Amino acid sequence: MKNTQVTLVVPGTTKIEEVPVPKPGRGEVLIQVDTVGICGSDVHSFESGPFIPPKDPNQKIGLGHECAGTVVSVGEEVEDFKAGDRVCIEPGVPCGECRFCHEGRYNLCLKMDFMATQPNYRGALTNYLVHPASMTYHLPDTMSFLEGALVEPASVGMHAAMEAQVGPGKKVVILGAGCIGLMTLQAARLMGADDIVVVDMMEKRLEMARRLGATATVDASREDTVSACKAILGELGADVVFETAGSRVTAAQAPSLVMRGGKIMIVGTIPGETPIDFLKINREVSIQTVFRYANRYPMTIRAIAEKRLDVASMVTHIFPYGESQRAFEESVKNKADIIKGAIEIKG
Amino acid sequence: MKNTQVTLVVPGTTKIEEVPVPKPGRGEVLIQVDTVGICGSDVHSFESGPFIPPKDPNQKIGLGHECAGTVVSVGEEVEDFKAGDRVCIEPGVPCGECRFCHEGRYNLCLKMDFMATQPNYRGALTNYLVHPASMTYHLPDTMSFLEGALVEPASVGMHAAMEAQVGPGKKVVILGAGCIGLMTLQAARLMGADDIVVVDMMEKRLEMARRLGATATVDASREDTVSACKAILGELGADVVFETAGSRVTAAQAPSLVMRGGKIMIVGTIPGETPIDFLKINREVSIQTVFRYANRYPMTIRAIAEKRLDVASMVTHIFPYGESQRAFEESVKNKADIIKGAIEIKG
Amino acid sequence: MKNTQVTLVVPGTTKIEEVPVPKPGRGEVLIQVDTVGICGSDVHSFESGPFIPPKDPNQKIGLGHECAGTVVSVGEEVEDFKAGDRVCIEPGVPCGECRFCHEGRYNLCLKMDFMATQPNYRGALTNYLVHPASMTYHLPDTMSFLEGALVEPASVGMHAAMEAQVGPGKKVVILGAGCIGLMTLQAARLMGADDIVVVDMMEKRLEMARRLGATATVDASREDTVSACKAILGELGADVVFETAGSRVTAAQAPSLVMRGGKIMIVGTIPGETPIDFLKINREVSIQTVFRYANRYPMTIRAIAEKRLDVASMVTHIFPYGESQRAFEESVKNKADIIKGAIEIKG
Amino acid sequence: MKNTQVTLVVPGTTKIEEVPVPKPGRGEVLIQVDTVGICGSDVHSFESGPFIPPKDPNQKIGLGHECAGTVVSVGEEVEDFKAGDRVCIEPGVPCGECRFCHEGRYNLCLKMDFMATQPNYRGALTNYLVHPASMTYHLPDTMSFLEGALVEPASVGMHAAMEAQVGPGKKVVILGAGCIGLMTLQAARLMGADDIVVVDMMEKRLEMARRLGATATVDASREDTVSACKAILGELGADVVFETAGSRVTAAQAPSLVMRGGKIMIVGTIPGETPIDFLKINREVSIQTVFRYANRYPMTIRAIAEKRLDVASMVTHIFPYGESQRAFEESVKNKADIIKGAIEIKG
Repeated sequence: MKNTQVTLVVPGTTKIEEVPVPKPGRGEVLIQVDTVGICGSDVHSFESGPFIPPKDPNQKIGLGHECAGTVVSVGEEVEDFKAGDRVCIEPGVPCGECRFCHEGRYNLCLKMDFMATQPNYRGALTNYLVHPASMTYHLPDTMSFLEGALVEPASVGMHAAMEAQVGPGKKVVILGAGCIGLMTLQAARLMGADDIVVVDMMEKRLEMARRLGATATVDASREDTVSACKAILGELGADVVFETAGSRVTAAQAPSLVMRGGKIMIVGTIPGETPIDFLKINREVSIQTVFRYANRYPMTIRAIAEKRLDVASMVTHIFPYGESQRAFEESVKNKADIIKGAIEIKG
Repeated sequence: MKNTQVTLVVPGTTKIEEVPVPKPGRGEVLIQVDTVGICGSDVHSFESGPFIPPKDPNQKIGLGHECAGTVVSVGEEVEDFKAGDRVCIEPGVPCGECRFCHEGRYNLCLKMDFMATQPNYRGALTNYLVHPASMTYHLPDTMSFLEGALVEPASVGMHAAMEAQVGPGKKVVILGAGCIGLMTLQAARLMGADDIVVVDMMEKRLEMARRLGATATVDASREDTVSACKAILGELGADVVFETAGSRVTAAQAPSLVMRGGKIMIVGTIPGETPIDFLKINREVSIQTVFRYANRYPMTIRAIAEKRLDVASMVTHIFPYGESQRAFEESVKNKADIIKGAIEIKG
Repeated sequence: MKNTQVTLVVPGTTKIEEVPVPKPGRGEVLIQVDTVGICGSDVHSFESGPFIPPKDPNQKIGLGHECAGTVVSVGEEVEDFKAGDRVCIEPGVPCGECRFCHEGRYNLCLKMDFMATQPNYRGALTNYLVHPASMTYHLPDTMSFLEGALVEPASVGMHAAMEAQVGPGKKVVILGAGCIGLMTLQAARLMGADDIVVVDMMEKRLEMARRLGATATVDASREDTVSACKAILGELGADVVFETAGSRVTAAQAPSLVMRGGKIMIVGTIPGETPIDFLKINREVSIQTVFRYANRYPMTIRAIAEKRLDVASMVTHIFPYGESQRAFEESVKNKADIIKGAIEIKG
Repeated sequence: MKNTQVTLVVPGTTKIEEVPVPKPGRGEVLIQVDTVGICGSDVHSFESGPFIPPKDPNQKIGLGHECAGTVVSVGEEVEDFKAGDRVCIEPGVPCGECRFCHEGRYNLCLKMDFMATQPNYRGALTNYLVHPASMTYHLPDTMSFLEGALVEPASVGMHAAMEAQVGPGKKVVILGAGCIGLMTLQAARLMGADDIVVVDMMEKRLEMARRLGATATVDASREDTVSACKAILGELGADVVFETAGSRVTAAQAPSLVMRGGKIMIVGTIPGETPIDFLKINREVSIQTVFRYANRYPMTIRAIAEKRLDVASMVTHIFPYGESQRAFEESVKNKADIIKGAIEIKG
């Protein structure tokens, strides 16, 4: 058994180098990784280095956190898994003891150990990794490893939709039809929203949005977003506006789209300062940031396994592990075309 | 029976002119007004004209909406009131039939008729007014008319604290120790908050805050707000930050004061655009605007009647009705000294 | 224009008698009724007289409250409707002024005027009726009058599922596959529940449940309900158990079916006393009664119009207006076969 | 350093026997116990043996779980405590990994290890015990060990009041003025409830209730509970009824006391079956069981330290450790007089 990992040498350059095969400790499982999704945050790290650079210059910086694979062996006190089990993992391991963990908001954990970020730079782009059994989940037989890897971004969409209390009677606008926007769209549809209007600047993405359940789409490259959405939803606007594009431009549109008493959910990562006119939203609107997910994996896995969520058809590009460097380069160059990319390790 | 009202002639100039005594229709009561509180929005109208100017140039623009008085007579189908009853009123009359009214968020009513604003310019600074019995409330014997008039701003503070779900275990920061800030402070104390830090630039107001239950105060004219609050509350910050100063400066501080998973409540009226750095609050913080109140009068009256809320001691200036013009002029000139002003009509 | 209504003469006997055509007052519409659903409460009134008998012995007791029809004319101040509009109605008219109305829980209104119950015995089984425009709803073109009549029971199911906060990740048991049970099932499916196990004693109903989205069914005439449900859902049980059968037997099973932290929703009308062993559900289970609905019509209409809810296929028996007496007699005799009956008036 | 514990030999008989001094493992602290409160469940175990008898007949059954003391030493990776720290503990240690722990409802943990119950029979009536640092809390200087021991029952009252969402505007009835009833009363007062009516059969307890903030009391030995409460609160009844007496009689009264839309909180342990007439509470009432507490210690400690909760004055009987057998015997014999008993170990 030999192990390698994709290591970020300097921004823009990775290498596949040999690393030890880790040993599962108490409560941990050893997983042979099969498939890893490429997340925007991985691409950002590849381009610019990690958000939080390591203190120890010898620390190897791995990449990737959306992954699925097969259990190879288990540590002490692991009862729910055995060698051969197909699994996916939650890449963030909370401390379990801080105020936020105790309150069930473990995504806010004060000591979160999230894969490929500080304090832990190990990434999922490796042959073998260890992970706590409590953050590992069985893949139903109807799910592929690729689908397993995409449970992670699908959980982000599910979390956003559930935090917003989407449901029957709700009018929803989703700004951005990238991977997270399309996941949020599907979660909103699954939860019974009445209207789901998806806004993007690329017709190809809007077409996919319509296929995945959008009740209407707006091409922001050709129409004014606010007036087009109001033509569809009425002057009052939307109960919930999801910003998933990670752009100040779309974030600044949200207050014009939301109805009195409604919610703006900031799902994307918005750099810099967004000017907000509170008088425009002074009738009990809330703006909430959404951070990853907590307690969403089981329901997301179930919905994917039963084809209530379709994650596989979002994957437009698959790369072999040996071409990880090219995978990241293409992801940088080709943002428009790649809705979702993944890297296959095994086989 | 003769009736007069304070009419805004042009910005800066009012006159007391004779108007007809209105007749209570079905479900309405006729009230002889005793005391009217002066709200910041009244002062704003006095200075600059009403937010929404009248379409009919002959329409008289009244002022005042915080009021208490005595029932003179009642219209048909009014069972709960009779002549002689001491009352206060909710100055906003919702339509009762729109989506928001049906859902119990009647402060968001699409056709709200709020005193001294369009669509209804009648003000409380008058001898006699009619009002729906369903928006009229009995004053307990232990409450003065002055306290009755102040139920309105006290309800704003109560609503803000209840929307924020303040309670035991919560750390609260209140930015601004004006009337609304002090009301919010008292509501937070009534609901059992652990820490209530009040920030203002005037020592006199901070002294009142301490007397009314603040656990700590910060003088922003001498200390850095953020570092002073964190020295008191810890690096994590506050569960809830109330912006009551109506200032972009304080609103822009709130993201540095709130803890992950916490809430920023925008209670003040903040003109223009406030720059918000969403990365600073990306761990599931929400920013919510608060608009007036709904369903808060009964509990606020009860708390005032039992001295669990102290509204009277906030009143620093009382003017006779005949000097209403001077009352507004002083309110404009003397913002620093007047925490709360009121006008006495009867007697 | 002539008007008649189905009047309950004595329990078990109705007659169709002439009554005046009512006039729409301010804010009201006059509706020519097309289709009326037969509710269990109508059948109960037919058999035993109304729950609350009239004080005035001359008062005519009408029947029926699930109805749709066509607007004939409108009263003053009605802007949203005109003659010819196809509509359905919410049969309960809340006062709009009591505490519960103000709080948005108008189904708890202290002065609710609900069709065919005291204080108002007018029923929907009539040619013409007047109703407040604010409780009248447009039927989309894609909806039949029959579907319009069934918005009422569908709203009961929608309300139950929404009060229970059903959604992705939830395991649901529905006790009883009558009209309300099947409506609740569909609402739970629409909202994204993971498991929906329906329990009944009649295979025909269970077959319909499976067709409408049940993930599993249990035939209580042949299997033990509790052990069969746990075999499907696991020993922990269900997040939510809906009792829709209106039976003490099923209500008494619910505590054995619900998981720790879960909810039992009492939707059916359960006569007499149900023994509850609180030690069995001592880990934070709640038992909540559900009463009609509030704010559910718009979302229910939308979902039916878009075939996300299927109400029409539940209707097993349709009777002409002239045979209303027979319709009720059959409903009494033939409870097993009739999942849902309706009476057609027009045409 | 020598260690002893109070061991239950057979029901009704305890002995103080020598046991090893335990060693703190990773993340654990060793505590020298100072004071232990006597809970009704301890008395029940003393009388009848533990609810869940041990499988291994050699296992020593300890008693007591409400305790405070001083840290003696700490295990690896403990940063927040050091020798000499005064502390109290949460006696239940959740697994941190099951669904309920992840969701923040750790009181529902599937593998909860709660002191003096199976699976762990170690009790707090001992000189030295080890406990996870994450379930250990600092005592502020203003708090005595006795108060520290009573954080546990106070947290039960706090949890009940918070789960019920007590606050301004709420009318509350508390059935039973024992320790838990009086704690719930104080929590409700702290959170700003309007009316708090306490019902008991012993005047001495009602007197204490009035002193601790009850707005009214009902002596059920002389008055009819339901009519007396309604005379105080009005015919509509209470928003929240807390059953803390653990009696089927009072539980059966709750449905007659609660208002439409209200809540019945079952805090007491009610043996056997309570007959519930769901027609009496069919307007959206919920009955919820309350189980211990989760996330309530920090706020409870803070409130006690600041005298916002008064726990010490409820303690009517204090016994020395050497007379533990007598303490339990008296607790059995003298239920009427002992509102709260405690045992002092150190000094």
